[in-house]
Amino acid sequence: MAVCAKKINFAIEKKYISMLEISEIFNAAAVLKGVARTTAIIPAPKLCPGLDIYLKTENLQQTGSFKLRGAYYKISQLSEEEKARGVIACSAGNHAQGVALGATHNGIKALICLPAGAPISKIEATKGYGAEVCLVPGVYDDAYAKALELQKEYGYCFVHPFDDPKVIAGQGTIGLEILEQMPEVEAVVVPIGGGGLISGVAFAIKTLRPDVKVYGVQSSGAPSMAESLKEGKLCHLNDVSTIADGIAVKEPGVNTFEMCNKYVDEVVTVSDDEIAAAILALIEKQKIVAEGAGAVSVAAVMFGKLPVEGKKTVCLVSGGNIDVNTLNRVITRGLNKSGRNYSFIIDIADKPGQLSGVCSVVGERGGNIISVNHERINSSTAINGCMIRLELETRDADHIEEIRGALISEGYKVLN
Amino acid sequence: MAVCAKKINFAIEKKYISMLEISEIFNAAAVLKGVARTTAIIPAPKLCPGLDIYLKTENLQQTGSFKLRGAYYKISQLSEEEKARGVIACSAGNHAQGVALGATHNGIKALICLPAGAPISKIEATKGYGAEVCLVPGVYDDAYAKALELQKEYGYCFVHPFDDPKVIAGQGTIGLEILEQMPEVEAVVVPIGGGGLISGVAFAIKTLRPDVKVYGVQSSGAPSMAESLKEGKLCHLNDVSTIADGIAVKEPGVNTFEMCNKYVDEVVTVSDDEIAAAILALIEKQKIVAEGAGAVSVAAVMFGKLPVEGKKTVCLVSGGNIDVNTLNRVITRGLNKSGRNYSFIIDIADKPGQLSGVCSVVGERGGNIISVNHERINSSTAINGCMIRLELETRDADHIEEIRGALISEGYKVLN
Repeated sequence: MAVCAKKINFAIEKKYISMLEISEIFNAAAVLKGVARTTAIIPAPKLCPGLDIYLKTENLQQTGSFKLRGAYYKISQLSEEEKARGVIACSAGNHAQGVALGATHNGIKALICLPAGAPISKIEATKGYGAEVCLVPGVYDDAYAKALELQKEYGYCFVHPFDDPKVIAGQGTIGLEILEQMPEVEAVVVPIGGGGLISGVAFAIKTLRPDVKVYGVQSSGAPSMAESLKEGKLCHLNDVSTIADGIAVKEPGVNTFEMCNKYVDEVVTVSDDEIAAAILALIEKQKIVAEGAGAVSVAAVMFGKLPVEGKKTVCLVSGGNIDVNTLNRVITRGLNKSGRNYSFIIDIADKPGQLSGVCSVVGERGGNIISVNHERINSSTAINGCMIRLELETRDADHIEEIRGALISEGYKVLN
Repeated sequence: MAVCAKKINFAIEKKYISMLEISEIFNAAAVLKGVARTTAIIPAPKLCPGLDIYLKTENLQQTGSFKLRGAYYKISQLSEEEKARGVIACSAGNHAQGVALGATHNGIKALICLPAGAPISKIEATKGYGAEVCLVPGVYDDAYAKALELQKEYGYCFVHPFDDPKVIAGQGTIGLEILEQMPEVEAVVVPIGGGGLISGVAFAIKTLRPDVKVYGVQSSGAPSMAESLKEGKLCHLNDVSTIADGIAVKEPGVNTFEMCNKYVDEVVTVSDDEIAAAILALIEKQKIVAEGAGAVSVAAVMFGKLPVEGKKTVCLVSGGNIDVNTLNRVITRGLNKSGRNYSFIIDIADKPGQLSGVCSVVGERGGNIISVNHERINSSTAINGCMIRLELETRDADHIEEIRGALISEGYKVLN
């Protein structure tokens, strides 16, 4: 799956790790005061019965994700001359909004390159935070190439989404907050895309409290950091595919890879189905909305991927910017899985009163009809037969079986 | 719509208002320390551009709503003799969970009467918090009658959902928290069902900071308090119908009515469509899940029902226990309204290649097909015609028009 490749790194000094000091994280925290919210840590007792889980709610951060922290701090640390030139970034998502707001707060110009097919909502949000948007035909890579081209042409300062010491220091402020808000913490679980977030958080936590475990989670559809750590060198994935689009990164950063190697205890992966289940559980049990990337930490704990039993564990919910169409699909799938939505396919005689009969059986058992498809001609039904597809809201799997039993005992032929 | 009736009040002393002291609210706050979370107040700059709105997130409270506060405080104040007898309550929702957890925390027995048709999830949650559940055939009123019967038979202490001074004092702790968390607050907007929440909050705020406005919001499908205040006496509604089931109350309390009369500046109503829009906006822009009852405060502000311009305004989001099927419907409706989901009905010739042609036009314009209904026999189509119903994910209203234009210019007959 993974092809190991030499990283062509853009304008980043590789050796900074040895230079990154904890004082820089404290400095970032001071700079971010009044800009980034100290997001709440909320207990999640019903999410994973038997485990002691808490959520650091960066989905409730301004712009809907942690990205503001790193982008803002990076921009604040530019020289006056760099600020005068303005910044450029490339992103289809949270980083764009973070850079836009960071630049506006600092009173400087920001140009964000977005692929032309990016969701209107994200384009509008980026503009809304005060950035100029350059829509580039094609996909993310085209937008990235365009950003580099414009950067060279006009001398903008490029704000990397993850592989930059200042960006990492900004994200690291979350680590400080966790230690301050919950000094008794024993494990922290952090999503990984390019690795900027976990690098900052792990650096802060392991420097101040080496006893606290730091675990990373990737999507199994984009396991670039997990593969790289396994191989012991940077790996490049040719394809990534996951509902967690915020962490669908083909290759980790040079620096973030080394920091993960040094500071992270273990990295695991979760599937799209597990991520979807975590999103639904967060909605139902915690009343918060997480995007796929933001929910992987919770998914890893829910599905027993990490040794957190008996440990006071903080899952970092890194963002909440999920497209509502996607959310709708995740919920629908979750409803199906938990038996609260079911479609019966029923073979009936083509004569008056049949549909009404089926509907009254369903209604008497408390099934709520959402949609009906009634179709006469079908190669799998008798020539004088009919097929009904009845989509219902149901209470649970037992309720579905109760309705099925009632239909069968009334003589209806249930095909599924 | 409203029938004014004399209230038959159950075991509640009407004159307590003159007895309720602010010290009782402070006492309740002390008792609730370590039990109820001090829920965060989060800024909501994008919810209503131009207004200065904040959210008091009681949907993130344990049990998913503020109800825990009043129930727990009430139970904690019972005499040892009353505690030994145990408590009884009747509720299909948040109050049940609040009483269950409150009783368990206090180490006493709780019996909750629920209508038999209540959602499994709510029944399970109530059991999960340690209460015994009595399922009563019929609707809420039947469960209520059963609770009174059992109360008389076994001497349980009845915990009223709103019209009780201790319950009101417990809810009032939210008022104290708002003043402490945001001393510069100028207006507070509070959902009203029976009126327990707003009575406590308004009493606390008007006693300590009479300059702060307190506004109430009801659903227009259940405006019992609004009607009562207008009429100047208790009104009883024969029918209530709203997606905000948590505040679908037919008649306010005797005491809560008097407290609203005295302490609340204005009460307005919002429609189900406005409530649905608020739920969706909270998901998209604030990343939190509110139930209908919890979102009415936000709906009132979003739709300009209250004079909060220029005022630092806290909307109390009182709960998040929304049924996921309902949430799914709210989202789907919202997607339709905002042009991110659309069904084209297209009349085509019944010959090979037609569906493929339509699909390729749609695909080229970036429309994502969710479902297809292709139907031949239909009285409104030509005898050799066919009808296609194509459900799409779209970006916005302009995107829908772009696709419609492309279909028409390719010669397809769009019927809607």
